[in-house]
Amino acid sequence: MIPLGGVGEIGKNMMLVEVDDEILIIDAGVMFPEDDLLGIDLVIPDFSYVKQNSHRVKGIVLTHGHEDHIGALPYLLKDVNVPVYGTKLTLGLLEVKLSEHKLLKGTRLKVVNPGCSVQIGNFKVDFIRVNHSIADTCALAIHTPLGPIIYASDFKFDQTPIDGEVADFHKLAELGDKSPGVLALFSDSTNVEREGFTLSEKFVGSTIDEIFRSARERIVVATFASNIHRIQQIIDAAFKYNRKVAFTGRSMINNIEIARNLGYLTIPEDMIVDIRNCSSLPDNRVVLLTTGSQGEPMAALTRMARGDHYHINIRNGDTVIISASAIPGNEKFIGETINQLFKRGANVIYEDISGVHVSGHASQEELKLMLNLVKPKFFVPVHGEYRHLYHHAKLAEDVGIPKENIYIAEVGDRIRFTEKEVKKDDSIQSGQVFVDGLGVGDVGNIVLRDRRVLSEDGIIIVVITIDQQGKILSGPDIVTRGFVYIRESEELIAEATSRVEEALKECEKNNITEWSVLKNTVRDSLNNYIYKKIKRNPMILPIIMQV
Amino acid sequence: MIPLGGVGEIGKNMMLVEVDDEILIIDAGVMFPEDDLLGIDLVIPDFSYVKQNSHRVKGIVLTHGHEDHIGALPYLLKDVNVPVYGTKLTLGLLEVKLSEHKLLKGTRLKVVNPGCSVQIGNFKVDFIRVNHSIADTCALAIHTPLGPIIYASDFKFDQTPIDGEVADFHKLAELGDKSPGVLALFSDSTNVEREGFTLSEKFVGSTIDEIFRSARERIVVATFASNIHRIQQIIDAAFKYNRKVAFTGRSMINNIEIARNLGYLTIPEDMIVDIRNCSSLPDNRVVLLTTGSQGEPMAALTRMARGDHYHINIRNGDTVIISASAIPGNEKFIGETINQLFKRGANVIYEDISGVHVSGHASQEELKLMLNLVKPKFFVPVHGEYRHLYHHAKLAEDVGIPKENIYIAEVGDRIRFTEKEVKKDDSIQSGQVFVDGLGVGDVGNIVLRDRRVLSEDGIIIVVITIDQQGKILSGPDIVTRGFVYIRESEELIAEATSRVEEALKECEKNNITEWSVLKNTVRDSLNNYIYKKIKRNPMILPIIMQV
Repeated sequence: MIPLGGVGEIGKNMMLVEVDDEILIIDAGVMFPEDDLLGIDLVIPDFSYVKQNSHRVKGIVLTHGHEDHIGALPYLLKDVNVPVYGTKLTLGLLEVKLSEHKLLKGTRLKVVNPGCSVQIGNFKVDFIRVNHSIADTCALAIHTPLGPIIYASDFKFDQTPIDGEVADFHKLAELGDKSPGVLALFSDSTNVEREGFTLSEKFVGSTIDEIFRSARERIVVATFASNIHRIQQIIDAAFKYNRKVAFTGRSMINNIEIARNLGYLTIPEDMIVDIRNCSSLPDNRVVLLTTGSQGEPMAALTRMARGDHYHINIRNGDTVIISASAIPGNEKFIGETINQLFKRGANVIYEDISGVHVSGHASQEELKLMLNLVKPKFFVPVHGEYRHLYHHAKLAEDVGIPKENIYIAEVGDRIRFTEKEVKKDDSIQSGQVFVDGLGVGDVGNIVLRDRRVLSEDGIIIVVITIDQQGKILSGPDIVTRGFVYIRESEELIAEATSRVEEALKECEKNNITEWSVLKNTVRDSLNNYIYKKIKRNPMILPIIMQV
Repeated sequence: MIPLGGVGEIGKNMMLVEVDDEILIIDAGVMFPEDDLLGIDLVIPDFSYVKQNSHRVKGIVLTHGHEDHIGALPYLLKDVNVPVYGTKLTLGLLEVKLSEHKLLKGTRLKVVNPGCSVQIGNFKVDFIRVNHSIADTCALAIHTPLGPIIYASDFKFDQTPIDGEVADFHKLAELGDKSPGVLALFSDSTNVEREGFTLSEKFVGSTIDEIFRSARERIVVATFASNIHRIQQIIDAAFKYNRKVAFTGRSMINNIEIARNLGYLTIPEDMIVDIRNCSSLPDNRVVLLTTGSQGEPMAALTRMARGDHYHINIRNGDTVIISASAIPGNEKFIGETINQLFKRGANVIYEDISGVHVSGHASQEELKLMLNLVKPKFFVPVHGEYRHLYHHAKLAEDVGIPKENIYIAEVGDRIRFTEKEVKKDDSIQSGQVFVDGLGVGDVGNIVLRDRRVLSEDGIIIVVITIDQQGKILSGPDIVTRGFVYIRESEELIAEATSRVEEALKECEKNNITEWSVLKNTVRDSLNNYIYKKIKRNPMILPIIMQV
């Protein structure tokens, strides 16, 4: 087993399974860039090893349809065009993505029902139903000569799920019980720091019901567009309280369409109104389902809060429910949106002060239950930063897995299981590849370092024109961007220019004409002057033109 | 009353009190910049109004010694040199700051003991002891002809404080009871979303005691350097378990020295060891007190976690306590530090999984108690974003303050109290001033916008040298920074250069020699090409040199 992402980090989940000569790929997700990856749109796994061994890859199996599990597929499929297996909703969401990348036609998609098995090369893979914040999520059992390996990607055990489909405890129990027993368990560490059981999705339903019952004017609900069960509960409450529903936000509209077409979402046709016609209904007959639960600057709820949505703006008396938790890093955006909604007079209900969201990930007792059900010989915690993996390893020890049978992996580790032990063979090429616009991998550390310097203190460009003999014909001219407001800093720039002139004169006196030396002289003299004067370190870029 | 900060935002707390012709300033704090203020070091209030009215300013009173209450004083004192009043520790911390800015000599500092009153011009000000995460915090009562105004800056009510000094309930009760009654209360909204009472600082002591009791090797504790009571509790535990203490981190060393000199911290001299001599002690005899509880990249704990601290690195068996909560925005840094500490084999104890920190701000029941004690006619919630002020206003309504007597302020509002009503007169010039290096106010929105563009996609510079007739002598030369990795994108740059050449030829053919038109042509042609090719929007900067 080789993780290409998702261990020691949150996101870009991807795992390779190697048995003899064959490779099976589990998931291929993206990671959303941290703030310090300036200008980067997406982070995907490094596919070098997969590319080099593409002839050995037999297929790709998907656990569920979230971006951090399927988002990198359009990039991966350019390198290895093999069949992709997943449940109906997972592949439905993938199709949209593939058609955006013009890859839909060339890709072989194979629908698998939860509870079924498929043969991919020599791999037999069972799809085992679990619960999560997106419908149709599966754990996988990959059968190997030494016994099955269970890959429990994101999951929770919901005893009262919205669709009535509880996790397939029986299959997990059977695998744990039957000879030869489960070789290894790979399991979700996201919520390992939380005690007890994660609340059922149904809990949110009753909170929402209560809010709907007492709301007297319009209701706006923002949630993750992929959380189909949450959306169903909102629709059900709207139906119960005799309200129509309208949708806004591209991903919300898309996902609802896919989920309805595939039968995952039940909405009576006459309940749906176009958002442009909302205003013709009485306020107490409207529910608006929207994106923007993370305060994303361009999302529909954020626009409504700012007052620049095309069709609807928030006004006094509206009830706004933000039915989501903050993804780390988004707290500030969400807070800003909440402030603006309150300013517009809305009654805003959000996670910090009420139960309008539950997690999709297993807490400690569920993680222990999974371990006790499948009784694996070896255990590898996945999906978490180091501290999550560490705590999950401790938890497994508590449950009785011997310490030496637990492996905390890093991205790129080739983890080998034998009958007796788990160990690392070697490391393959792996890491992060940055997507910026249409460019994949053309922005690396040097470019990012430059962007960081530019973002901190801007740039000073010094241009000189010289003749063939090296005599200065024009300049030095100084142009700055992102450094200081020029009109108020003319003196500083004038002084800087004369420092450069002096430095160049000194060079002339000493018969220095080599360009690199001239450039360094200019850079050093300016650097010193600027730092001494205002304690800043802008990028200094000397350009010499020769005529 | 005019807030110059701290309402509708967290930080840069500052309030002006105007009675007749006189002005009194309460606090002058900084705000730490959000991520989108690229390269900005500090945000301070706009002092224009104070400057224009400096002759009317009688003094500055300080509630406590945190940065968001005293950090902007060095900048303010350059504009108005008036006496500064505060408790002993507050002024002790301020002194360090002033001497760094070479302002210590020229500033008149006046120590006030909690429980005492001072006369400043016509203002009589009572300093009223309250509890907070820094010792010597006071609420203020400013007596006006219409009755006292109580300014309850950051506070909590700790029934079992470390120094035994409970809040001065009697004074608050007396003011609330005595004719003419309290005119207005300004009160801390930070924790208004939390139910109940905030736990006592003493609670942390018992957690720390337990951890110390069971630790077998070295103990490292990171906390806020200004939380003197927390530090005292750590020292006490070290004493009890027969460990010596060493200090690291500049602000930790400074603050401990100030607090010891002023008598706020008791440490037997023979308990202190130099950090360089720690290694000569047995591991179970050492406690290290350090900065870095926010995962700041250059702080001592962060260095120890990374393995590049001068004297101490974290190793297997160490117990590390992070006795602090994450200031919003720092979660990622702290998480990274925790991961590294675990990787080094430390037992890390942090807020998410145990009670090693309590807040310094009042929760709902304390806020209600404050309202009920002082029974103000008018109420103005302060210190919070809009949603905090909104919730605090609702809370005051619950307690019985009439809605029309509550005012939610914005920065710059001139709030006038009469016997009958509170209302806004007008707005004065106010807002944020950015400090970047030694520059104060020279980076504004234009410079920040440029930094943002530069940080996203970098810069493309196009240089052309022309003669007096406008004929091109040299160039176009293209130089980029932060755009793409050039060696792998030669083709792109070559194509871009030829696009510019074509555009310039077109200009020549049409006899266009005006520089601004040439520049725009270059910019447009490049913009279009680059965006179409790789969907990025770098800054494009054409420079024309004439010889």
